[in-house]
Amino acid sequence: MNYKITVIPGDGIGPEIIEEAKKVLNQIGKRYGHKFDYTEVLMGGASIDATGVPLTEEALETAKNSDSVLLGAVGGNVGQSNWYSLPPHLRPEAGLLAIRKGLKLFANIRPAILFDELMEACPLKEDIVGSGFDFVVMRELTGGLYFGARSTVEENGIRKATDTLVYDETEIRRIAKWAFEIAMKRNKKVCSVDKANVLDSSRLWRQVTKEVAKDYPEVELTDMLVDNCAMQLVKNPRQFDVILTENMFGDILSDEASMITGSIGMLASASLGDTKLGLYEPSHGSAPDIAGQNKANPIATILSAAMMLRYSFDLEKEADQIEAAVKSVLKKGYRTVDIMQEGKTLVGTKEMGDLIVQEI
Amino acid sequence: MNYKITVIPGDGIGPEIIEEAKKVLNQIGKRYGHKFDYTEVLMGGASIDATGVPLTEEALETAKNSDSVLLGAVGGNVGQSNWYSLPPHLRPEAGLLAIRKGLKLFANIRPAILFDELMEACPLKEDIVGSGFDFVVMRELTGGLYFGARSTVEENGIRKATDTLVYDETEIRRIAKWAFEIAMKRNKKVCSVDKANVLDSSRLWRQVTKEVAKDYPEVELTDMLVDNCAMQLVKNPRQFDVILTENMFGDILSDEASMITGSIGMLASASLGDTKLGLYEPSHGSAPDIAGQNKANPIATILSAAMMLRYSFDLEKEADQIEAAVKSVLKKGYRTVDIMQEGKTLVGTKEMGDLIVQEI
Ligand SMILES: CC(C)[C@H](C(=O)O)[C@@H](O)C(=O)O
Ligand SMILES: CC(C)[C@H](C(=O)O)[C@@H](O)C(=O)O
Repeated sequence: MNYKITVIPGDGIGPEIIEEAKKVLNQIGKRYGHKFDYTEVLMGGASIDATGVPLTEEALETAKNSDSVLLGAVGGNVGQSNWYSLPPHLRPEAGLLAIRKGLKLFANIRPAILFDELMEACPLKEDIVGSGFDFVVMRELTGGLYFGARSTVEENGIRKATDTLVYDETEIRRIAKWAFEIAMKRNKKVCSVDKANVLDSSRLWRQVTKEVAKDYPEVELTDMLVDNCAMQLVKNPRQFDVILTENMFGDILSDEASMITGSIGMLASASLGDTKLGLYEPSHGSAPDIAGQNKANPIATILSAAMMLRYSFDLEKEADQIEAAVKSVLKKGYRTVDIMQEGKTLVGTKEMGDLIVQEI
Repeated sequence: MNYKITVIPGDGIGPEIIEEAKKVLNQIGKRYGHKFDYTEVLMGGASIDATGVPLTEEALETAKNSDSVLLGAVGGNVGQSNWYSLPPHLRPEAGLLAIRKGLKLFANIRPAILFDELMEACPLKEDIVGSGFDFVVMRELTGGLYFGARSTVEENGIRKATDTLVYDETEIRRIAKWAFEIAMKRNKKVCSVDKANVLDSSRLWRQVTKEVAKDYPEVELTDMLVDNCAMQLVKNPRQFDVILTENMFGDILSDEASMITGSIGMLASASLGDTKLGLYEPSHGSAPDIAGQNKANPIATILSAAMMLRYSFDLEKEADQIEAAVKSVLKKGYRTVDIMQEGKTLVGTKEMGDLIVQEI
């Protein structure tokens, strides 16, 4: 079959890691008889430089008309790049927010997995991680503080800024359903994280989540306060299967969850909506400091491509194949610099891509 | 001199740990010739049971008319206690929010210290913590999402909940000043944490913080995004001296910061305003499961009393004395159950209090 993929290399290491993911997809195509058609569009700093805005209408249209989107990374060094002297809605990251909203991608899925081969990189002590952990953070992505009304005004010479956190029950229900669906395919546990002892939006979140849970009697639902969750991720990450939370809490907790694995260069993410069209990107950033040096770890992007095959194209077997190839290369001892350990073989971005292709 | 202290034992282990802090204060009084007068008031569940509300006007008045407030902990088991079938503004935690606001305590100071003697309890690997860390989280405590307008409405049969995040420049300036003042007495580094790539309130936060920084040329100010900060606390906590942030981010990050020490039973906190009147409480909760069993660790409360001497009464020497006494008891190998290690001597709440008194 033919699949139309919008490819957004983006900024920094984006173009390099996207190249490797395409190599891997092409190999999958060759082996399994699929054809992946790529259309490249600009986003972030690259788009600002070329067009003045971080995401053009045309780029968004291209994405809308494709079967899925594969993204490298956007953004630069805040202190050094001219992009950050622009008003907020014209900065690189605004492109990311615009494409999420434009494609109605309300569900962000970020697996936090401690790879057997990379246990050493984990910042947590062995007695905490035991034989490892494997959970998923489901973050609501198109509501809450990110998209509520905001304003900065001056009243009697005093500047005052306001942001608004709004959720209605339909927004909560659709992401909660996603969390329960995913839990059904995993260990059947959803931990919904909120601040219900303070926020109205959290109290509604808790209520609606409980309502959705009735349709999934096999899944165990627990609630946890966000401050406690920030602690539990460090104290006992093994307790989690699916963490479900709103946009801002999810931003914080999913990054904390990535970091406790110690190998953020390995972590994929998917942003999904009500259709099969999804956006897939590594959990890490654009790392401008090492851009163009063949140093970046392409694995998170390659694993994001695997998620794309699984969630957008229903190519389960092919997705498994990519994940197995990555594991095999790690097992053979190949490492990019971010996950390098004593006694292992250091390779560059391209070489890592080639090694993974060879396993497919 | 005479000092009027409002004492709030609260719920769960609150009364037990407060008792030990009072013992220690009395010993300090004896040795240094101060007199501490205690007036007990109810808050949280204890107040709900007695009066129907988590904080009465009279209790707040008593606190206002004293020189400082020492608090145990409030709250119960959400699943088990009747307190949590009450509407949110009548639940135990609402008392805490009401006293913070009522006493205008806008600055919450939470030290995150890895005690030499308790390195083993730290969940982070040795190569990360090295010789330990010692930083402070300064959290804004009376603004932001906690105290903005909120509502839950039904529109066309759809429930919708809204919370509001508001800061004006005066609120930001006064907490920023506190952070810089504290940094001046420490390692002269302030890291201001926000989400300026999304929120208007964060952009104002960043602006005002930079303005305040001009008055403290010796202090190095850096900005960090909240998602990154959640990662950096795990990856490299040694980089921090003073973390400055708004209410909700501070709630999450200060708890994460407590947990990376591995010994939350040791961590004190102070909530301060524009006057000398402050509220001092342990960073941990009310632990209803072990209440009344002489198992709770009183050290966080005892160290909170030390902070009270330092910040509210300017009794620096006396505060140092309490902290030295705690260190000495740890050095001699005494431990409550939460920080127990092989080869150490297990003691109860009361015994730990007595041991610390003996060192003074
Ligand atoms: C770049 C930024 C706006 C974005 C977010 O906060 O959502 C990023 O941190 C992420 O998590 O993808
Ligand atoms: C009990 C709760 C309302 C409170 C808060 O969120 O401020 C607590 O978590 C804290 O940090 O003191």
